[in-house]
Amino acid sequence: METINVMYVVDKDRHLLGFVTIRQLLLADEEDLIGDIMDDGLISASTMDDQEETARKFKKYDFLTMPVVDKENRLVGIVTIDDAVDVLVEETTEDIERMAAISPSYKPYLNTGIMETVKSRIPWLLLLMVSATFTGQIISSFEDQLAAVTVLNAYIPMLMDTGGNSGSQASVTVIRGIALGEIEFSDILRVQGKELLSSLLCGITLAAVNFGKILLVDHLLLRGFDSLNEALTVALVVSITIAVVVVIAKFVGCTLPLLAKKVGLDPAVMASPFITTIVDAVSLLVYFGIAMLILPGI
Amino acid sequence: METINVMYVVDKDRHLLGFVTIRQLLLADEEDLIGDIMDDGLISASTMDDQEETARKFKKYDFLTMPVVDKENRLVGIVTIDDAVDVLVEETTEDIERMAAISPSYKPYLNTGIMETVKSRIPWLLLLMVSATFTGQIISSFEDQLAAVTVLNAYIPMLMDTGGNSGSQASVTVIRGIALGEIEFSDILRVQGKELLSSLLCGITLAAVNFGKILLVDHLLLRGFDSLNEALTVALVVSITIAVVVVIAKFVGCTLPLLAKKVGLDPAVMASPFITTIVDAVSLLVYFGIAMLILPGI
Repeated sequence: METINVMYVVDKDRHLLGFVTIRQLLLADEEDLIGDIMDDGLISASTMDDQEETARKFKKYDFLTMPVVDKENRLVGIVTIDDAVDVLVEETTEDIERMAAISPSYKPYLNTGIMETVKSRIPWLLLLMVSATFTGQIISSFEDQLAAVTVLNAYIPMLMDTGGNSGSQASVTVIRGIALGEIEFSDILRVQGKELLSSLLCGITLAAVNFGKILLVDHLLLRGFDSLNEALTVALVVSITIAVVVVIAKFVGCTLPLLAKKVGLDPAVMASPFITTIVDAVSLLVYFGIAMLILPGI
Repeated sequence: METINVMYVVDKDRHLLGFVTIRQLLLADEEDLIGDIMDDGLISASTMDDQEETARKFKKYDFLTMPVVDKENRLVGIVTIDDAVDVLVEETTEDIERMAAISPSYKPYLNTGIMETVKSRIPWLLLLMVSATFTGQIISSFEDQLAAVTVLNAYIPMLMDTGGNSGSQASVTVIRGIALGEIEFSDILRVQGKELLSSLLCGITLAAVNFGKILLVDHLLLRGFDSLNEALTVALVVSITIAVVVVIAKFVGCTLPLLAKKVGLDPAVMASPFITTIVDAVSLLVYFGIAMLILPGI
């Protein structure tokens, strides 16, 4: 680290009063006292502050150094921006790992042992695997409906993936916004309003494209249906499901990270894998529900 | 930004020669020349350098400022660490957005208009929706097998989700490693070796847990099978599939970001949504392939 050109000024009990720069010292008159030339508009970090929060202050105020004080405002040290940069990068890596269902390792990838890598990944995979069996239960319980209209099966992966992707777009955006200090829990209604509106637009667009695709590609090109009538009703079921699923996925996706933040959990855990597991189950329930309303004979 | 305590030294044509600190100036003898006291071990950025790469140099060398030179090594400006911090944060946000299938917006979430949000998300959702129909085609083409052993249906979401989660763990880890400069394309064999080994361990563990779960929960508790024999063979099919899918998913997940980097694409695009789409299709092919080998009568 290059040398620091700020000096902090304390009283005889080490209470922090202000700072002077080398430039101020060099330009000062000989009879000036430090108390005369020092600057007292000082932002400091407390020993009890979260390191990520302190790192964000550096970014916000463009500081090079920040004094650290104890509970009685006594100077106990300084933090420099190079430490803040390391913290920012490390905390972001931690967020990214959590978002991908990995326990943070705090080590460069190639220096992490195989067992360590396995241990950071397996618990999440197990948890998500077991959760995904609920989705399987839903499919099992609609076995008769699926047997009656087997073509419904073919749209399940697309519905699950589209729901998962929509949800993770919303959750990741909100998680990043929280990490950057741009979104607070108190913004929840604004966030939800924004996501509802944009998910409606996304959902309707996807539904329309999907409706056309089922009729043109699946029916006319691939001859996947017995009649135009069947193609139309299935297209209707799938398209309505997509629109509903996108709206629900984005709503869940934007809400869970904010709730997690509120109750003191890491919002980053509420990202793609977790959201996907929830949205998968919801998608299938919506799908079968709409199918039973619209399709004759199931 | 606080004042900078480094001065860059140039010759009469502005070629960069070295630097002096205020401290060196204050401590110098009166007869010293700048050339005598300056430090010439200087790391500079070029006007043609990528801003992310330059920001990483700040992190690596703990600099506060870095001189910028043109192609002839003439000093044309300086970059300060507060700009580097902004670049690091912005580039990371861009990576995170790309990983969640969102086009980067470079604006705080709450300041982004609804239409802008929709535009940054819809193209990816459409692309992934259309890709997911291939997975649907695979299911359609194995309709007869699914009709023969309908219980196979129930494990499809779990296999797809586990594959997707495994793949995204590997891809996100590698993407972050590339972004932090920890992993290069030349490390590809080491990365693949590491992922193969750890995916084998993950795959075998998940397969074992799943085998036990199918027998204990799905068969004994939920009575989802007609006979112990059916439960055993289906458990075998599903468990072998899981192990194979986890290995393939992690291999694809760690390889694609490195290939993307090699051909000049943003590795961050090769994250969860893209990997999931590929892995879904692969999972189903493996699943039906193994089912046809092991299960009688399909």
